[in-house]
Amino acid sequence: MNGAESLVRTLLDEQVEVCFSNPGTSEMHFVAALDRIEGMRCVLGLFEGVVTGAADGYWRIAQRPASTLLHLGPGLANGLANLHNAKKAHSGIVNVVGEHATAHVALDAPLTSDIEGVARPMSNWVHTIGSSVGVQAAARAAVQAATTPPGRIATLVLPADCAWNTVPADQPSTGRSTRLVRPPADAALIDATVGLLRSGEATLLLLGGVACREAGLAMAGRIAEVTGCQVMVEFPVALVQRGAGRVNAARIPYVPEAAMAALKPYRNIVLIGSTDPVSFFAYPGKPGRQAPAGARIVPLADVGQDLLGTLEALADALGARDKTPKGRTALSRLALPEGPMTLEGLGQVVAALIPENAIVVDESVTGGRALGALTATAAPHDFLTSTGGAIGFGMPTAIGAAIAAPDRKVLVLEGDGSAMYTIQSLWTMAREGLDITVLVFANRAYRILQGEFAGVGAGTPGPRANHMLMLDNPSLDFVGLARSMGVEAGRATDLGSLARELARGLASKGPYLVEAVL
Amino acid sequence: MNGAESLVRTLLDEQVEVCFSNPGTSEMHFVAALDRIEGMRCVLGLFEGVVTGAADGYWRIAQRPASTLLHLGPGLANGLANLHNAKKAHSGIVNVVGEHATAHVALDAPLTSDIEGVARPMSNWVHTIGSSVGVQAAARAAVQAATTPPGRIATLVLPADCAWNTVPADQPSTGRSTRLVRPPADAALIDATVGLLRSGEATLLLLGGVACREAGLAMAGRIAEVTGCQVMVEFPVALVQRGAGRVNAARIPYVPEAAMAALKPYRNIVLIGSTDPVSFFAYPGKPGRQAPAGARIVPLADVGQDLLGTLEALADALGARDKTPKGRTALSRLALPEGPMTLEGLGQVVAALIPENAIVVDESVTGGRALGALTATAAPHDFLTSTGGAIGFGMPTAIGAAIAAPDRKVLVLEGDGSAMYTIQSLWTMAREGLDITVLVFANRAYRILQGEFAGVGAGTPGPRANHMLMLDNPSLDFVGLARSMGVEAGRATDLGSLARELARGLASKGPYLVEAVL
Repeated sequence: MNGAESLVRTLLDEQVEVCFSNPGTSEMHFVAALDRIEGMRCVLGLFEGVVTGAADGYWRIAQRPASTLLHLGPGLANGLANLHNAKKAHSGIVNVVGEHATAHVALDAPLTSDIEGVARPMSNWVHTIGSSVGVQAAARAAVQAATTPPGRIATLVLPADCAWNTVPADQPSTGRSTRLVRPPADAALIDATVGLLRSGEATLLLLGGVACREAGLAMAGRIAEVTGCQVMVEFPVALVQRGAGRVNAARIPYVPEAAMAALKPYRNIVLIGSTDPVSFFAYPGKPGRQAPAGARIVPLADVGQDLLGTLEALADALGARDKTPKGRTALSRLALPEGPMTLEGLGQVVAALIPENAIVVDESVTGGRALGALTATAAPHDFLTSTGGAIGFGMPTAIGAAIAAPDRKVLVLEGDGSAMYTIQSLWTMAREGLDITVLVFANRAYRILQGEFAGVGAGTPGPRANHMLMLDNPSLDFVGLARSMGVEAGRATDLGSLARELARGLASKGPYLVEAVL
Repeated sequence: MNGAESLVRTLLDEQVEVCFSNPGTSEMHFVAALDRIEGMRCVLGLFEGVVTGAADGYWRIAQRPASTLLHLGPGLANGLANLHNAKKAHSGIVNVVGEHATAHVALDAPLTSDIEGVARPMSNWVHTIGSSVGVQAAARAAVQAATTPPGRIATLVLPADCAWNTVPADQPSTGRSTRLVRPPADAALIDATVGLLRSGEATLLLLGGVACREAGLAMAGRIAEVTGCQVMVEFPVALVQRGAGRVNAARIPYVPEAAMAALKPYRNIVLIGSTDPVSFFAYPGKPGRQAPAGARIVPLADVGQDLLGTLEALADALGARDKTPKGRTALSRLALPEGPMTLEGLGQVVAALIPENAIVVDESVTGGRALGALTATAAPHDFLTSTGGAIGFGMPTAIGAAIAAPDRKVLVLEGDGSAMYTIQSLWTMAREGLDITVLVFANRAYRILQGEFAGVGAGTPGPRANHMLMLDNPSLDFVGLARSMGVEAGRATDLGSLARELARGLASKGPYLVEAVL
């Protein structure tokens, strides 16, 4: 057995069974080990942003870490943007980054770089393996780090000699790493929160993390039923369960003025897995925090604590445990609209057609803003958003989600600008036969930036500024791009053709792309 | 005037007149400034690796820095791989990376990250601007850093408030930054080298950096004519001038055994802008250094020193200044071969058709290995290689080269695997109407890795390993990809159709892609 085999065996023993990969020379022994060891599903991405985004999506659905296999500093660098999103989503990932053999690093060969330095800004844990014999312990520590609640980015650097050198066949297994338990919320804070909820003051339960899943939403809805409080979900949410049968908790809006208006009524804002709301960006003369100046912010439970248990404790104290949750919706499918393409109509088509138990990955940027209000009574679905704002999140995340849940349909809502950052995702969808429908909102512009331009006080874009903001010259042909990577596709130019194309994609058992021309 | 305008004006005053861009909200004031200030050519890339690779290519041809405009930590992260290549090529680049407004950073908004930490591994100089009034001095310092010989990566972080806050209209210009002169080689080392060259011992002049341009090669050829020494070029070379009229200096081969065989004859290896040759990767039981163990390595001039002056000093001491350079070639165009596609035949077609004074960017990986021997008597051309080994270098670098030299044809030799890392480049080529022909070597595999697999002692890939190494399921349609991004394209399946397609591309005055199916 060599170090690479030890790594694959240890990962499997730790129940890390998927490896999203873009290997190079220094990773060849890991790749070779796959031929000798059963059980690791390796998924190739043609660009590392696909690889790391897929690992993020896998965690969000499976709640178990996948591994990635990346080639030296530059390969890791290409994956950083989606690791940034994953870190902000609190996803657990075990990155395996190849490094030159230990003695080769000092020679400063062309691909030499400071891998730990590249890793650190987007990792919670970084370790460079020192010997093949040390691989097992390092791999277990990496999984331990990745699974520490709420989930962390662990980056393990594997020098090539530590992969190819032997490990004694009788090296004992040190046993699986521990799965840490989420600590409970502070009892005094729970008591204080119960007091606030009983006070009659306008109080908001602001949910984040796993509190945004069905059970957490339901428990919050029970508390709302008894106390009259409101329930909302933070804007950058890793996964919120929505649709029929779930408590419909609005997300805080993206636009700061709208967010501040939404938060304005509240005297108390109780954070349960969320953070004190701030705007994505700063704007001249506007506050970055969105809560009213006088509001009391109660940091009841951070995202790594026991969020469902915290909500249960509140419900128990308030006698709400057996109540029917306030705001739980029933299925009410929208009618399919006809006519010219509008964002409202587009949202209606999507809401009408979301399949039961689908996974919806949203990177529609401006295009999807109408959607939230329309999908509350759609079929139940998981809704995943970009928690870190790094573009190129949607399609890679969908790949990981589809690998984690092969029996569920994945629907990606993708801006045309954002689609292009990790367009290589389509090839992996085709190769793995993933059941993903990609809906591209083709407005031929960085539309959000045209809005932000005014938002930051820069006025109206002139010709040279618009040259940086428009994507219409030439227009991108997403149907052609998809087909060139093996994904069937169709174009929609009005709401009728959109409904037909989307239904076709959702009915197929494999990847399909719909280009909605706005 | 605000800080963004101050930045654009200062860059222009420093003769930085091109900005490769992928902006976001925090960069909108820079974009807005473009409408009010003439003279900055802004080129949009749909992915940041396109942006940074283009800045690298621009420097290699123009020998002046371009700027980049990148969005926060994740945008910079997406550009790191090509910054790695640029750093190893000693290209000068001024990166402008937007940051949240100073007060917003502490709020840990979703896009917040350690930008300086992201920048540092692939930058030689990093600075965060503290106020709009400080923009001018910081920008001048960045250009100073970028132009310090041999050329450096300077990363300037621009918080949004420093862009939007005002600068007094009467802020005085502090005057252009200094252009540092390349220091000469050590006189004693020159004398010692002259002694070695006169000794009759087998001596190699190993050239790197700007010594690989026509004048340096010619001077080395004169020294060879007088002393009988040999002249070679390092493998990872930023730009070597080749073809008719130039001294034909072989590059050290990629494969370590071949490199060691090429260096074996030499008792003395004189480094002029190059470094002691090492293999790209380590292999079990093989040395990383490629020079014979007993060879004397003479570090005559490093890449930032006056390389042409050093060669002139040697030539003067040896009475070689007026000699005809040994190894200077005359034009001898190869005949166009016919028949099935072979790498040798493909190289012959390329060598036969390279236009006069073309810029050839090589990321053909395994496909182009036959080329070096075939192009010595082709039309004179510049040959650019990936100095850092980070994949996705070819097409972005070609964009920058084409912007720097609009009157020259740019030919990209691109592997199919490597093309996919920065495939978005094609759109920028179309939008800017760049005179670039892209030749994709479509072998439907990471062919180099299939070789490296054996090279590192892993044997022959089995089915699961090959699933990570083959790109044939599904096959990528590069003609379709190009057309979908506005670039005309054609496919070649034998040498005859290759010659026709390549000639068509080279004859067009705009971008064209040829997919050569191997």
